[in-house]
This record gives sequence, C-alpha cells and structure tokens, in this order.
Amino acid sequence: KRQGFPEFIFGEGKTPEQIMAIFEAMQKRGDDVVVTRVDKEKAAEILVKHPEVTYHETARILSWKAVDSQEKRTGYIAILCAGTSDLPVAEEAAVIAELLGSNVRRFYDVGVAGIHRLLDHAEEIQGATVSVVVAGMEGALASVVGGLVSHPVIAVPTSVGYGASFNGVSALLTMLNSCASGVSVVNIDNGFGGGYQAVLIDRLAGKGSD
Amino acid sequence: KRQGFPEFIFGEGKTPEQIMAIFEAMQKRGDDVVVTRVDKEKAAEILVKHPEVTYHETARILSWKAVDSQEKRTGYIAILCAGTSDLPVAEEAAVIAELLGSNVRRFYDVGVAGIHRLLDHAEEIQGATVSVVVAGMEGALASVVGGLVSHPVIAVPTSVGYGASFNGVSALLTMLNSCASGVSVVNIDNGFGGGYQAVLIDRLAGKGSD
Amino acid sequence: KRQGFPEFIFGEGKTPEQIMAIFEAMQKRGDDVVVTRVDKEKAAEILVKHPEVTYHETARILSWKAVDSQEKRTGYIAILCAGTSDLPVAEEAAVIAELLGSNVRRFYDVGVAGIHRLLDHAEEIQGATVSVVVAGMEGALASVVGGLVSHPVIAVPTSVGYGASFNGVSALLTMLNSCASGVSVVNIDNGFGGGYQAVLIDRLAGKGSD
Amino acid sequence: KRQGFPEFIFGEGKTPEQIMAIFEAMQKRGDDVVVTRVDKEKAAEILVKHPEVTYHETARILSWKAVDSQEKRTGYIAILCAGTSDLPVAEEAAVIAELLGSNVRRFYDVGVAGIHRLLDHAEEIQGATVSVVVAGMEGALASVVGGLVSHPVIAVPTSVGYGASFNGVSALLTMLNSCASGVSVVNIDNGFGGGYQAVLIDRLAGKGSD
Amino acid sequence: KRQGFPEFIFGEGKTPEQIMAIFEAMQKRGDDVVVTRVDKEKAAEILVKHPEVTYHETARILSWKAVDSQEKRTGYIAILCAGTSDLPVAEEAAVIAELLGSNVRRFYDVGVAGIHRLLDHAEEIQGATVSVVVAGMEGALASVVGGLVSHPVIAVPTSVGYGASFNGVSALLTMLNSCASGVSVVNIDNGFGGGYQAVLIDRLAGKGSD
Amino acid sequence: KRQGFPEFIFGEGKTPEQIMAIFEAMQKRGDDVVVTRVDKEKAAEILVKHPEVTYHETARILSWKAVDSQEKRTGYIAILCAGTSDLPVAEEAAVIAELLGSNVRRFYDVGVAGIHRLLDHAEEIQGATVSVVVAGMEGALASVVGGLVSHPVIAVPTSVGYGASFNGVSALLTMLNSCASGVSVVNIDNGFGGGYQAVLIDRLAGKGSD
Amino acid sequence: KRQGFPEFIFGEGKTPEQIMAIFEAMQKRGDDVVVTRVDKEKAAEILVKHPEVTYHETARILSWKAVDSQEKRTGYIAILCAGTSDLPVAEEAAVIAELLGSNVRRFYDVGVAGIHRLLDHAEEIQGATVSVVVAGMEGALASVVGGLVSHPVIAVPTSVGYGASFNGVSALLTMLNSCASGVSVVNIDNGFGGGYQAVLIDRLAGKGSD
Amino acid sequence: KRQGFPEFIFGEGKTPEQIMAIFEAMQKRGDDVVVTRVDKEKAAEILVKHPEVTYHETARILSWKAVDSQEKRTGYIAILCAGTSDLPVAEEAAVIAELLGSNVRRFYDVGVAGIHRLLDHAEEIQGATVSVVVAGMEGALASVVGGLVSHPVIAVPTSVGYGASFNGVSALLTMLNSCASGVSVVNIDNGFGGGYQAVLIDRLAGKGSD
Ligand SMILES: Nc1ncnc2c1ncn2[C@@H]1O[C@H](COP(=O)(O)O)[C@@H](O)[C@H]1O
Ligand SMILES: Nc1ncnc2c1ncn2[C@@H]1O[C@H](COP(=O)(O)O)[C@@H](O)[C@H]1O
Ligand SMILES: Nc1ncnc2c1ncn2[C@@H]1O[C@H](COP(=O)(O)O)[C@@H](O)[C@H]1O
Ligand SMILES: Nc1ncnc2c1ncn2[C@@H]1O[C@H](COP(=O)(O)O)[C@@H](O)[C@H]1O
Ligand SMILES: [Mg+2]
Ligand SMILES: [Mg+2]
Ligand SMILES: [Mg+2]
Ligand SMILES: [Mg+2]
Ligand SMILES: [Mg+2]
Ligand SMILES: [Mg+2]
Ligand SMILES: [Mg+2]
Ligand SMILES: [Mg+2]
Repeated sequence: KRQGFPEFIFGEGKTPEQIMAIFEAMQKRGDDVVVTRVDKEKAAEILVKHPEVTYHETARILSWKAVDSQEKRTGYIAILCAGTSDLPVAEEAAVIAELLGSNVRRFYDVGVAGIHRLLDHAEEIQGATVSVVVAGMEGALASVVGGLVSHPVIAVPTSVGYGASFNGVSALLTMLNSCASGVSVVNIDNGFGGGYQAVLIDRLAGKGSD
Repeated sequence: KRQGFPEFIFGEGKTPEQIMAIFEAMQKRGDDVVVTRVDKEKAAEILVKHPEVTYHETARILSWKAVDSQEKRTGYIAILCAGTSDLPVAEEAAVIAELLGSNVRRFYDVGVAGIHRLLDHAEEIQGATVSVVVAGMEGALASVVGGLVSHPVIAVPTSVGYGASFNGVSALLTMLNSCASGVSVVNIDNGFGGGYQAVLIDRLAGKGSD
Repeated sequence: KRQGFPEFIFGEGKTPEQIMAIFEAMQKRGDDVVVTRVDKEKAAEILVKHPEVTYHETARILSWKAVDSQEKRTGYIAILCAGTSDLPVAEEAAVIAELLGSNVRRFYDVGVAGIHRLLDHAEEIQGATVSVVVAGMEGALASVVGGLVSHPVIAVPTSVGYGASFNGVSALLTMLNSCASGVSVVNIDNGFGGGYQAVLIDRLAGKGSD
Repeated sequence: KRQGFPEFIFGEGKTPEQIMAIFEAMQKRGDDVVVTRVDKEKAAEILVKHPEVTYHETARILSWKAVDSQEKRTGYIAILCAGTSDLPVAEEAAVIAELLGSNVRRFYDVGVAGIHRLLDHAEEIQGATVSVVVAGMEGALASVVGGLVSHPVIAVPTSVGYGASFNGVSALLTMLNSCASGVSVVNIDNGFGGGYQAVLIDRLAGKGSD
Repeated sequence: KRQGFPEFIFGEGKTPEQIMAIFEAMQKRGDDVVVTRVDKEKAAEILVKHPEVTYHETARILSWKAVDSQEKRTGYIAILCAGTSDLPVAEEAAVIAELLGSNVRRFYDVGVAGIHRLLDHAEEIQGATVSVVVAGMEGALASVVGGLVSHPVIAVPTSVGYGASFNGVSALLTMLNSCASGVSVVNIDNGFGGGYQAVLIDRLAGKGSD
Repeated sequence: KRQGFPEFIFGEGKTPEQIMAIFEAMQKRGDDVVVTRVDKEKAAEILVKHPEVTYHETARILSWKAVDSQEKRTGYIAILCAGTSDLPVAEEAAVIAELLGSNVRRFYDVGVAGIHRLLDHAEEIQGATVSVVVAGMEGALASVVGGLVSHPVIAVPTSVGYGASFNGVSALLTMLNSCASGVSVVNIDNGFGGGYQAVLIDRLAGKGSD
Repeated sequence: KRQGFPEFIFGEGKTPEQIMAIFEAMQKRGDDVVVTRVDKEKAAEILVKHPEVTYHETARILSWKAVDSQEKRTGYIAILCAGTSDLPVAEEAAVIAELLGSNVRRFYDVGVAGIHRLLDHAEEIQGATVSVVVAGMEGALASVVGGLVSHPVIAVPTSVGYGASFNGVSALLTMLNSCASGVSVVNIDNGFGGGYQAVLIDRLAGKGSD
Repeated sequence: KRQGFPEFIFGEGKTPEQIMAIFEAMQKRGDDVVVTRVDKEKAAEILVKHPEVTYHETARILSWKAVDSQEKRTGYIAILCAGTSDLPVAEEAAVIAELLGSNVRRFYDVGVAGIHRLLDHAEEIQGATVSVVVAGMEGALASVVGGLVSHPVIAVPTSVGYGASFNGVSALLTMLNSCASGVSVVNIDNGFGGGYQAVLIDRLAGKGSD
C-alpha cells in the first residue's frame, strides 16, 4: 500500500463474502478501501450489509472514504474514449483518479472516425497535465491524441471488438506502435492502471521536483 | 490475364535472367508487361539489354508499354501515406494505377500524429473515386480517412516499424478493425494489390452500371 | 452518419431497453435506423413495443424504413457463400446492401469442394458490379471467385469451423494471401462491413466519375 | 531405414564434406543414398569427387542408385502446383516418388485463380492413386482438388508468399481446414514427406490388402 | 457426395429439428446418412422420432444404413490412442471407418509414457494397411508409431490438455514435425477426417492400382 | 515537432547521404537535430563531413546542439537495467533525456537475479521523479522497481535473449502484466520513447500544475 | 504407476460416477489413490459415498491413504506464491508433495511488488532442498527466487491475470527466460507437476547417489 | 556467482576482444571462467592469446580451470538426444555438467522414430540421478524418457527443424505438455540451463538432505 492511498482490492473472481471479509478487516485497521471489478449483482449484495459504501456503477467500483485528504489541485486529467462500449474502462480510470484526489475531465464521444468531435475539444484536452486514452478495436485514438498534446498520454487498450480485434490485442499493438511520442501503455482493459499512473503524474505536476 | 490489362510478374526471388526470359516471351506474344519488386541493381542489369523498358525506382517497377489504351478518365484515385518509409509501397500502388490508365493524386505527408496536414487536404481527398491508404506501425491513418470520406477506402498495411509492429501485423489488425465503415484491406506491403483493386473500382465509376 | 444513409447500431452486448432507447431517439430525429447483431429473443421483445420495425431473422437485423429513396439501379451485387453455417454473415451483407438500395443476387451453395456448382453460375456472377464472398474454414472461395470475375471482390472471412480454423483466422489469412488480384478483405464475421463496402462500390457504378 | 528403401539424408545445414562422409559410409554398407536440400553450389563440389551421383537441380536432390528394384507399376501419383515458386517443393516430392519406384504425372500450372486450367486435367488427375498438392500463399488448391478426386490427397503447404502468408502458416491452416474430405497435410515445404507418404499409399494400391 | 458413400452431416451447431429435416430429405432421396458431433441429449430427441437410426455414443455419431455394400475386406485399419480423454475422437474415426466398410482394430491404452504397452502390440499394428493415431497434449504417439510401422500413418491431434496445449495446437505441431516419415495430419479433433482418409487408403489396398 | 524540442530522425534504414540531407535541411531552418539508431560505421562517414556533430556511441545517437535552453532542474530521472546487452537501449533513453535537458542517474547492474545490488540503491532510485526500467529476457525488473518506488515507472522491454524470449515479446508481456501499479510500457527496444516520456513527466515535476 | 507411489487421476472433465468407478477399481487392487482437479460440488457427492476419503479443498484434491510409508525426511520443499489467486495451484503442489511423503514449508504472501516480504524469509527458503515457485501475471517471482537460492527451482506459471496475461502465457515466457540459472518450468497451472518434480528431487536429497 | 562455481559468460554477441577483457578481469580475481556460445572462429582468435584455455568445439564452450575441486561422485547424469543436429545443445549441457564436477553418460542416437535404440539403453539411463533430454522438431523424446525413468527429467527443446517447428516452439510445447510426470523444461536451445539444473539436482543426490 502506497502511503496516503487507499487499499485496492481486485474484485473479479471474489465472492461478495470474500470481498466483505477483506473490507471489514481493512475498515478495522482504519484503511480506506477501493474494490474494482464488482458487478451490479455483487454490489447490491454488499450494499445491503454495508450501506456506508459508495458504488460507481459504470466503473464497477466500490469505495469507502478514499477521497484524498490533500487540498484539491487546479490541474486536471483528461480521459478520452469513443463511446458506449469503452465506457466501463474509461470510467474505471476516471473514478480511480477522482478517488485519489485528482480532477478529471471526460471526453467520451471522440472516436477517430469522427475526427472533428475530437478537434473541437483540442484546446481543453491540451490543457490537462496528462491524458488517459481508452480505446478498443483499432485503438487509433491514442496516436491522434499523442500528436495533438504535449503532455504524457497513458493509453489503455480495451477488449471491445470482435474477430481480428483478438480481445484487445489489436488495440494494444496499435498503441505500442504509436507514431506519436509521449505515449505509454498499460494492460488491456486496465482502466485502474491507467487512472493510477495518471494520478502519479498529475501529483508530480502538483508538487514540482525543484 | 484480365483482358486489356498487361501481364504482371512478381520479380522478387527471380534473377534478372529469369525476368528477361519471361519478358521476352511476352513481348513476342505482343503482351504489355509489368514487373513488380525489382530492386535497383536488377533493374540496371535488365535495362542494359532492354533499353525500351521504363524503371520506376521508388515503386520498384519495370514496365513495358502497359498504359491503358482507353481514353483518360476525369476521376482520380487518392493515394495517402505518412512519409519516407511507406513510400515504396505507396508508389507501387500509384504506379500500378497509372499504368492501368487511372489518374492518381498523391498525399504523402499526412500521418495521424500531425492530423492537420491531413485535414488541409480533406476536400481534395473526398473528391476522389476511391482512396488507397498506405500505413505501417499503428496503421491508424485508414480509420481517420475512412471517417473523412464517403467513397471506398482500400487499406494497405506495411511492414514498416520494429518490435511490436511484428512486420506489419500491427497495422494489418488496426485496419481490419477499423471503426470507420467502407474500409477493406489487402496483404501487408501489397501496394500492387491496393492499386489494382482501386483501379477496378475507379473503372466502375467511369463505366456506370445502369 | 453518411448522408442519405440510415443510422447503424451495433446490437451485440446491448439490452433490448438500450436498443429501444437509441432507436426512439433516432426516430424522433427523423433518422432511419438499422440495428445489426440482434438475436431472435431480443428482437421479439423489441417487436412487441415496436411493431413498425422489420426483423430479418437469418441476418439478425432490425430495420426501420432505411430503404434508400434513390431510384433503383439495374446493376447488382453478387453475394456468395458455401452453405448453412455461413448464412448469417452472408445474409447480414445481403440485407445491409438491400436496405441501402442496391440489388442483390444470392449464390449460397457454391463451396469450392463442389466447384461445378460455382461454375454453373459463373456468367451471372461475372455480370455483377461487385461480389461479396463469405467463407469460413479454409476460405478458398474468395480466390476462386477472384479468378473468375473482373470486378472487385470483397472477402468476408467467418468464424465457422473448429480446431485450426482459429475462429476465422485461417479464412482471414487465406483471403489476405489470395493469388487472385482484385480481392480486399474485411474483419472476421463482418457481414455488415462487406455489404457496406459493396454498396459504396455499386453506387459508384451507378454514378460514374466522369 | 525402411527395408528396400534408400537412406535419406537431410542436406540442409551440412557441409559438402559432411555429406560426402555420410555418403561414403553408406556406399560402403551397400546402401542406396538420397540427399535432400542440397543447393547447386554444394552439389557442384560433391559431383567433382562423386561423378557417379545424380543431381536433380530443381528438386535440390542428390541420389545414388535408389531406383526401386520392384517391377514398375501401372498406377501413378499426380503432383500438382500453381507455378514457378512452388516448383522446388513439388519437384522434391516428384523426384522422391520416382526414386522410390512410383510413376509420377506432373500438373504444374494449375493455380485456383485460373480454375479452368485445373479442370482441363480433371480426368487424368482423378485417374491417379493419390495426389500430392503443393501450394503456398492461400493454399486453396488442396481443397479444390480434394473436391474433384476420390482418392487420398496429400497437401504440402509452402513458405511461398509474403506478409500475412507468415512463411507458410497461411497455406498450412487452409489445408488443415479443408472443407473437402480425404486431405491430410505434412509440414511446410516438406516435399520429401509429401512424396514419401504418396509412395506408401501408391504401393498399397500396387499390393492390395486382401 | 462420393459415389457409394453415405451423406455426411456435421451435427454441431444444428438443432435436433434441423438435423431431422436434412435427414428426412435424404431418406426420401434414398441416401444413407451419417451425422457426426451429435451429443447424447440431441440424439435422444432424434431417436424418439427415428427409432430406425443407430446412435454410437462415444463417437457421437448417428447413422442410418451406411454400411458399405461391398464385400468385407480382409485388411484392417489400426486406430490408436492413449486413453480416456481421446476416446471420443478415436471412436469418431473408428465408427466412420466401419460405416464405410473397413475393418478396424482398436489400440486404446498405448500412450508414450508407457511405451511397453504400445510395443506389446507392435506386430498387430504393423499388420494394418494404415494407422490412425489420435493424441492430445504432446501428441508424441504419432512419431513413435510412424517409426514402428511401414504403412501410412494418419495423425489426428486432439484438443485434450490444458495450459500450453493451446486446445490442440501443441499436438498438431508435434505431428506436423514428426521425425518419422509417412505421417500426415488432419485438423484438431477431426476424427471424421482421420477415419475417412484411412478408408480411402484402405480401399486402395483392397483394389490395387495395377 | 514539439516546441523547444529538437527534430528527431529515425536513422535505421537510412543511408548516410539521406541522413546528411535531412540534417542539412534542418540546420538551415535553424532546428536542433537528434538522429537515433545510427551505427558506428554510418556515424564515422557523417562525422567526416559534419565534425560539429556529437556521436554517442553506445546510445547510437547523433546530435547537433539540442541541449534544452531551460535552466537545469534539480530533479532527476533514474534509468535502470541489468547489464551489458541492454546497455544500448538504456543509453538511448538516457542520452535522449539529457539532450532534452533532464538530469539522469544511471543504475546499470541491477538485474533481479542479484536483488541486493538493486536494493543497495533503493533510496536514490526512489528519489527520482520518474524511473525508466530497461530489461530483456524475462523483464522482471520493472515489477520489482514498481514495487519499490512511488513515482511513475516507464518500462522498456528489449529484444535481448533467445528462444522463448521471442525478440522481446516475453519482456513486453511481463511488463504489461506488472503486479505493481504505476508501470506503463513502450515498444520493444524503444529507448527513445522511454526517455521521451520520462522527460515529459520530469518537466511536469519542474513546472507544477497549480 | 511409479513404485511406492499412489495412482494419480486427473479429475477435470470426469463425472463423480466416473471418478468413483476408477477409485473403487483401484481400492480393490489395493492401490492408494489421489484425484486432482475435483471441485467442491463433485467432492461433496463423492464424500457421501466414500467417507474414508480426504478432500483438500483449496488444492481441489481427493486422496485415499497415499501418505508415503517411508520414514519422514528432515529436509523440506519450499512452496512460494504471491497470494489469493495463485493459492489453488500452490496448494495443489503442496498437497501432492505432502501426500508423497515430503515436508513442505509454505511462503504464500511474497509477491515481487513487495520484495521485502520475500527477503524476510530468504534464509528459510534457501534452507530447502528445492523450491516450487507459483506465479501468474508477470511471473517474475521465479527469477528473483532463482537468484536468492542455490538449489533447483521448479517454476509453475498460472493462468491468473487478464488481458495480455493470455491465460498464463506471459508468466510461462517469463519463467522460461529466467536470467537466474537453476530454474526449470512445467505447464501452466500444473501444480501437480511442480509438486511431483519437487518430490523426485527432494527424495534424491534423501537418498544420495554415492 | 554461486559459491564454488566458475563465472559464466554468455559469448554470443560479444567480440573476441570483449570476451578476453572479461576473461582477464576474472583471471585476475582468481575466478575460474566458462564462456558459452563461442564459435570456432572466435575461439581460434582467443586461443592464440590464451593458450591456457580449453575449447570444446561441438559444445562451443571455452573454459579455464573450472573443474570442481570436490571429490568425484559415483552417480551420473544421463544426456540424451536423437542425433546430428541436436549435438551442439546436448554437448553444451554435457560439458557444463562435467566442468561443474558431475559425471556424464551420453546417449546420442536415441530418437523416437527408432524406439528400440532407446530401449536398448533403458537400464543404464534409469540408473542416472537425473536425465537431460535434448530434442528439436517434435520433441517427443522427453515424454518417452519421462515414462521410462523414475528420476527427474530436464527437457531442453532445440530450434532444430523447419516450417511448423517454429524455431523450437513445437518442441517446447511438446515438452511442457508431457504426459509423463517428472519432466520440467528450460528455454529453447538452452543447453547451459539444462546442464546447470541437472548439476544442482545431481549434487543434492551427492549430499542428501537428512
Ligand atoms: N482493476 C484492476 N486491474 C489491475 N490491477 C488491479 C485492479 N484492481 C486492483 N488491482 C491491483 O490488485 C491488487 C490487489 O489484488 P488482490 O490481492 O487480488 O485483491 C492491488 O494492490 C492493486 O494493485
Ligand atoms: N455488424 C457490425 N459489424 C461492424 N460494425 C458495425 C456493425 N453494425 C454496426 N456497425 C458499426 O457500428 C457503429 C455503431 O456502433 P455503436 O455506436 O456501438 O452502436 C455504426 O456506425 C456502424 O459503423
Ligand atoms: N527434406 C526433408 N524434409 C524432412 N525430412 C527429411 C528430408 N530429407 C530427409 N528427411 C528425413 O531426415 C532423416 C535424416 O536426417 P539426418 O539424420 O539429419 O540426415 C531421414 O531419415 C528422413 O526421414
Ligand atoms: N548459453 C547460455 N544460455 C543461457 N544463459 C547463459 C548461457 N551462458 C551463460 N549464461 C548466463 O548468462 C550470464 C552471463 O551473462 P553476460 O553477463 O551477458 O555474460 C551467466 O551468469 C549465466 O547465468
Ligand atoms: Mg504528444
Ligand atoms: Mg468512409
Ligand atoms: Mg478478378
Ligand atoms: Mg476428395
Ligand atoms: Mg513409418
Ligand atoms: Mg510503484
Ligand atoms: Mg539459483
Ligand atoms: Mg518419470
């Protein structure tokens, strides 16, 4: 556990009982808790016993306290995706970032097949400290954003698509091969990791090194 | 051999002697000839004995006659790529299209990392009957162009790149997963195939079906 | 959205409620709507509330209006496959093409293991403006058709098969490596994309470029 | 070593000296010898010292005696391929079969892109005891032949092609997924194995089991 | 349909109703019928309406007549596998072979980890006209058998195993790379194809080519 | 080109003449220039004509001016690798970072097989604003460092290794699957990309966002 | 069956009835029995009829007698993993080792992201005769342990993870590429194989060879 | 460096000068040295300056002192392979084992296609403390040996083969999927790793744990 950070629990493959057990142990220790990958049904079961918990439905995240006690920063993280199917991963990144005390601005209808919707927001995106680009299928959005902004871009490939998308491999390769500089990549569907890395970078911006 | 088309020979892996032998046989039969994938050294050897032949250096193509006898069309094929390394494949497509009697307009510095250079030409590209998009590394250009134009796009992935570009597989997958409709794909580095398919489509535009 | 075209919705992974919500929003805007990948059960639920909608069962498509207002063309698109298992993808292509105003002729029992059934229709297939070849397993049909006709062929690999068919990868590779020229390829099981690209080409034939 | 068969040596990666050493040892033991994968330069060096040896250039085979002493059969093996680039593998199969005493008929210009050239020979091919189909790129020939004949087909994928042919993987998968029954497959470029298996089958035809 | 052979139907993915419809159509035409990949539940439903049909449970095959009318041959096909998990594929091959009129001898407990059980049967296996070797996991049995016998071996990889067996890919590669000559391979889990190819070879032995 | 940054040229696959031509064009425009992937031989040829250029041998980089004009920061980037074979990639990252004005501290003998050498430097590494971890073979170093530090880690897989390292794929997958949070990844052997992304992050630390 | 060892049965894919049948046959022969991969539900059904059997829940193993009759050794096997998700595989290894008569010490919270928890146990781990390292995701633990100890390490990759973990392939490759010497690897999720190999080595330590 | 062991240097990709520099540094420190992957030409250059060094040609190893000072053991390691092409890897394992003080017995003509040659040595192989099985192509030898012996087997896949051997992947998968227990695997062509792991095990046998 990083200091000043909540405990993170990976909820997938754990039963509601297992999650509550870990949860309660941590509450006892006085730790804030964030559980990722909790579907609606599991969350409902848990909320009955733990009404003090917050459930972020699209992000599939359960949190208890976990809002950073630090004073709010004026900088913000831009989180971008193309639409409906990538939303759960984008929201996982966004909610993680907010729970760790960063400001987030969402740009959620900016797929490359409609490049003008992206360009309409170019200035606001460029104003961020760091961007998180979430994209499935061909994953081209990361390169286009990388070319538009001069801050670091964290690319999160998603398993959205079918056939030759190979469950996110196509988007992953696109992002690793980005012709734009300043793009680094996390695992397929790892909204948590994308949001977390963005927060580390955003905090640096808040602190300064010298 | 398609009627009204020259004979096409795949020059890679053939010696200058083998190429000339096939060549001479076809000249005897009165056929026009186009040889692809002929490097500079081989071409030089052949030109000594066959000064009547034309060598297109960047495209690596040798041609003899082969310009379509049809009257020139007013429509044109747009051929796009991002720059230096994709040029040989883009030129292979362009020269094939010209040798088969189509008009070609080249847009060769329009990579997605500098989206505005592409958008500057949007209208002229949209005016084409068909676009051929040549791209390596992450291959994102095909999706962006597919979103800009309403005519068919033929995407040609190239083996340009290193590491996780896997010799063109990354660009190929990107293109097959294009979120823009109206994009179909040919083999990695197959500039010939991209140019040829574009000509078939461009000719339809010239003929009309009803 | 392309002008004069309906809105396309990808129905897979959406609930009947989500589909109807999008649907109703578009009806309000006066847009025609086409929803792909809707299975029988979902369609039934939707039809109860929206009896004005048409369900194309094998194609798994729901449509509302969407027949192109343009006068009908005399040209036609040929859609070919080998039989039973590829039918849903072939019909997806065929229904999309018809909904966009093209004429379609179906050749649905022409697998390469019985080459004569294909050859019996050679002339009628060659008469089309463009062919869509749908094939799984070894996907060899695209090459054979590519060799028979002189118009563009759009190849659609399907995930039909088992073992080393690798969910359509085998057919995809076959088609990308076609020894016949004039064959370009869309994603595995992408009947929608194959039909759409064919319509763009068929319309060119109707318009002429010069 | 199978009884009545020569010794087979895999020449690739062996020096002329190593090949001659093995060779001479076997001659001493009175064994016939066949060395595969011997390129022209190596063969030349060996022939200087062993003029009694025969070199089959396209097949890249060196043989010494090795023609089966059995009386010649009336049946024959059909060996098919599409042309120039597959010739070395097809000839490897053909020469092995002849050296083991089978009759061979060659059909070497019968690619699926020109299906009629294949069909012109359909009857003579069907008359064989077994067919060996050698094909690279998309490898579709095996399925088409499998559909035409009622005897066993041995398919030999070759590494001919580029890009998504993946050094023969595309052709290999095509052949393993053949929709025609009665097709079995050997390793990529394994003309030796295809010819050998065909001989075992052809000999059965000569013997009868009951 | 091959002359003198029943119609083969691939039952997987078809409903009992669809199977019975095809079935009845063929019975009307007077054709024998064999349906593969029919699980126990589907078979039970069909048998209620068609008690004249035979169900081969382990082989998952439904057959109606289909025993070759030819006089029985004295030769036999050897079918080998290592045990429990490969049985359905081995039986698919065996039942197909028997339905097509061949004699079959089964060797079903001969995995390479207990080499002596295999060697105990070496002579009887060598006496066959052709062997079908069915194996999953590492698939090594095909090479060992290929080394023991002098007739053709048809290798059938199965998807048995977990982890790095990659659903049969490991066994498939092993068999394609067999260091024993006279081994050719069919698709993963393709017991039908293995049995069918063996019958074509076994019939040759029965006929003789000269 | 990012403002205040030099022009970057990818030197691989370009002749000394091509590099010098680009180079001279940029000097004329007054741009600083950095050329990556220039081997010793090429560099020697260029230095003869351009003695004003600096060659960084291990990093394989040619630079001309390009040291950022900003006042030096007090923060630093940690660059880590395991030894000899990864040095060229690590140095590519380090030199890029220095040329762009960042301070760099090198930790070049800290492979996971000798974990104590790494731990000896834990405090100094943790003091950096960002770490670049360069590793081939199993690439485990990124996870271990990710667990030790609370700043962002940029992981650069290298193609060092043989056999199942698959030219860097093994290290790439390891890094993408890092169990430590705060690790993002660039392309195989992309020392340039790793250094560049680290600089963007290090500059943020220098600036602060609020 | 190895002498002095129980019979091992792979329970996955077998019904409780099939397992009990094999079980009873072996009891009759007087053999000890160990069944792996038996989930809780199956185990419950079997225990009703066979209360004499022991079920090891996390390890998913059913055993009957099978504790080695040899006098207990003083040496021990170290079994290591990072936590929750790898436990079933680690316990499979541990229980197998104990059933075969070895002493086992478990180190189950020693992931590389918290290197100090591992180092706290370094001496006790080094004291073992052999270590079994169980790890999913990036699998880096095997290399770190390999560097710490001077006895043989058996690495067991697990399918734990998502996205680019590719069901254990990432961990498998990491382990095969270990930069530490003295690490050998078994199949993904093969806790049984890891435990078994460790016992063979631990017994050697007990016996001595000279 | 393990205590009592020489320093190991990986010679591939290092120049003779670099090797000699490391070498001399270690000699100065009084360390024994073993350099692997040194080809004949490099070795010759080094031997001119360092005649005190021993070159093991087939194993491609240079050694200086490095024979373990411990008294010789009576146990032995069995090293097995099928022949010519696997020899360099087998010898790498054998020489490493001997340099580390183990006794080695070589069984170098025991491929599975000639199972009887292997069985002729079964007793002597079973007498070893541990076996190292080196095999390329289909790699089946490891399973067969694993079934014959009751001691640990270390399997070393080699890159020998062509086509679908995929540079050793086929053999690697075979070995990981071994149906025989007691087989663990090292990287492709890693004779060094196989020999080293065998020595660790053989030494245990010499020591005993209790
Ligand atoms: N959605 C997620 N994706 C990747 N890693 C996660 C995710 N959620 C939590 N984690 C990580 O998983 C660890 C907890 O795993 P576990 O012990 O299995 O609950 C945390 O320390 C996080 O670093
Ligand atoms: N079957 C299909 N396959 C691929 N793309 C489709 C399909 N159906 C619709 N689409 C595309 O998906 C887009 C709508 O996606 P969505 O917003 O997720 O409903 C449309 O604009 C179409 O371009
Ligand atoms: N071109 C070939 N492809 C595959 N196997 C071959 C080939 N030529 C010879 N062989 C086999 O390789 C064995 C000899 O290999 P070697 O001992 O390396 O010369 C022979 O017994 C044949 O079975
Ligand atoms: N043939 C080999 N294969 C794999 N690893 C080796 C080999 N030879 C030496 N090594 C390892 O490589 C390390 C030395 O690598 P290097 O510092 O690059 O010379 C040694 O400590 C050995 O563990
Ligand atoms: Mg940028
Ligand atoms: Mg478009
Ligand atoms: Mg054509
Ligand atoms: Mg046939
Ligand atoms: Mg044999
Ligand atoms: Mg960290
Ligand atoms: Mg160690
Ligand atoms: Mg054993």
